Amino acid sequence: MKKTIAISVGDLNGVGIEIALKSHIEVSKLCNPIYCISREMLFATLKLLNVEVPKDIKLHSVDGNFKIKPGRVDADSGRYSYDSFMSAIKLCVDKKADAVVTLPIHKEAWMMAGLEFKGHTDLLRYHFKRDAIMMLGCEGMFVALFTEHIPLKEVASTIKYKKLKEFFINLHNSIPKKKVAVLALNPHAGDNGVLGDEELKITKAIKSANKRVGFKQFIGPLVPDVAFTPHTRSQYNYFVAMYHDQGLAPLKALHFDESINISLNLPIIRTSVDHGTAFDIAYKAKAKTLSYMNAIKSAIEFAK
Amino acid sequence: MKKTIAISVGDLNGVGIEIALKSHIEVSKLCNPIYCISREMLFATLKLLNVEVPKDIKLHSVDGNFKIKPGRVDADSGRYSYDSFMSAIKLCVDKKADAVVTLPIHKEAWMMAGLEFKGHTDLLRYHFKRDAIMMLGCEGMFVALFTEHIPLKEVASTIKYKKLKEFFINLHNSIPKKKVAVLALNPHAGDNGVLGDEELKITKAIKSANKRVGFKQFIGPLVPDVAFTPHTRSQYNYFVAMYHDQGLAPLKALHFDESINISLNLPIIRTSVDHGTAFDIAYKAKAKTLSYMNAIKSAIEFAK
Repeated sequence: MKKTIAISVGDLNGVGIEIALKSHIEVSKLCNPIYCISREMLFATLKLLNVEVPKDIKLHSVDGNFKIKPGRVDADSGRYSYDSFMSAIKLCVDKKADAVVTLPIHKEAWMMAGLEFKGHTDLLRYHFKRDAIMMLGCEGMFVALFTEHIPLKEVASTIKYKKLKEFFINLHNSIPKKKVAVLALNPHAGDNGVLGDEELKITKAIKSANKRVGFKQFIGPLVPDVAFTPHTRSQYNYFVAMYHDQGLAPLKALHFDESINISLNLPIIRTSVDHGTAFDIAYKAKAKTLSYMNAIKSAIEFAK
Repeated sequence: MKKTIAISVGDLNGVGIEIALKSHIEVSKLCNPIYCISREMLFATLKLLNVEVPKDIKLHSVDGNFKIKPGRVDADSGRYSYDSFMSAIKLCVDKKADAVVTLPIHKEAWMMAGLEFKGHTDLLRYHFKRDAIMMLGCEGMFVALFTEHIPLKEVASTIKYKKLKEFFINLHNSIPKKKVAVLALNPHAGDNGVLGDEELKITKAIKSANKRVGFKQFIGPLVPDVAFTPHTRSQYNYFVAMYHDQGLAPLKALHFDESINISLNLPIIRTSVDHGTAFDIAYKAKAKTLSYMNAIKSAIEFAK
């Protein structure tokens, strides 16, 4: 049976709703989408996009009414994108949907609306009081981040045995059967301690996590600059990066337009496009749909 | 007129000499190679490889005689690879060659021979008392490293205005006309200071270097995880990475077999294959020649 996917429409001043409408027919073949938006607001976007209302479109109404200003950072639009997201989460929690797919919000618009979250993942952590894991990628290459938005100089001191082990166990609970390649922190994986010794903690955490999960799920630590060569990528589909750019620079070099963002270790499944509101091309019929289609497909996959 | 290239044969227990001999005919079409090896040692390798002596091969004899042991870490072989490299350097210094191309040495073999250098670049720095710049890549994408083999936790504190400016000026002297994209240190280039503030120093050094060289040669700092996307790569061929894996992980993800290593900011030109001795496949007719051919081509290019 087809899965039901709640769509959080994102900032209506950006490209999100155009992407969702463009993809509706294709998406409907794969799942039953429910768009978290009111009829009035949907019609306002349709008018701007100069397209007809898609047949059989299913909405979950979200209160609020404001004038859409394409490409503008705006408190009303920020608030509405938050409300759409919260409605989508509720549909999942209430078992009326199997997963949430989010279109991009704008952080400044959230701030203008008095919403103090750095983004979707931050809000999910707060809402569910759970240590969500951020994983990005596409079919064939997913990268989970051990640390995310922190200065580079703080990365090394966050590499701790207990926290790493907990991270591995949490990741295991989300992807219980997949082999996962874990990257080292230092160049050449520390070269036996000459270039850093955090690899000792990573190795210990890997061993301990593997013992707990009952098989060699976590492999490594791998030398970071050869972790994403064609040969290594042919062996693993899942990677753990110790810090933001270690994982995302190679990912975006290889798979820029295709990538998506998944939140793991939560009571609900949430996937997202891996791009922003793209205000510069909002309502100009220029937005690409590949990342959104991949987010839909992954949501269905993880919902199984 | 064809350039003359001095070939340092590397560790004779590894794949280097096989690669050089396999490529000799093709290389000879592009330049005049001089192999830094004695006739006796060359014949010993030919016997092991079961091939004939190439016609018209030009040697620059290097003293020393020892039994080749394919795939073995060995002091004699380490010493010979050092002597071959030093001979090649001398050919360049004496203007008998236009550039040096090096085949891989083995660091442990050097240690066993009592040679305390971490590798070719380290030895070049010591020999010429100059701050050599290590640049890796291939046609279309070269990455120069601001820091190299240091622990990740030490990277942030090495980001200093004066040192960066000096690095940019040195790089300018080696590639005076090329636009160079400079990476930030922190995720999202620090997000206006929220995720680190080293970008202020990088920006200041870029401005100052551009003023000195007289045009906007250095661009940035770029957000590290989008610096190597197809769009950014279509704009720049030269990049500066603040640390080892920031530049080399994306490079090797995209161009593993093709990449080469170039030493800049030295009185001589030196390029190298970007792989090791590959002892596991030594003398088994399995070694790939692409990186070596690219090293030869780049040496010719930079010698112009």
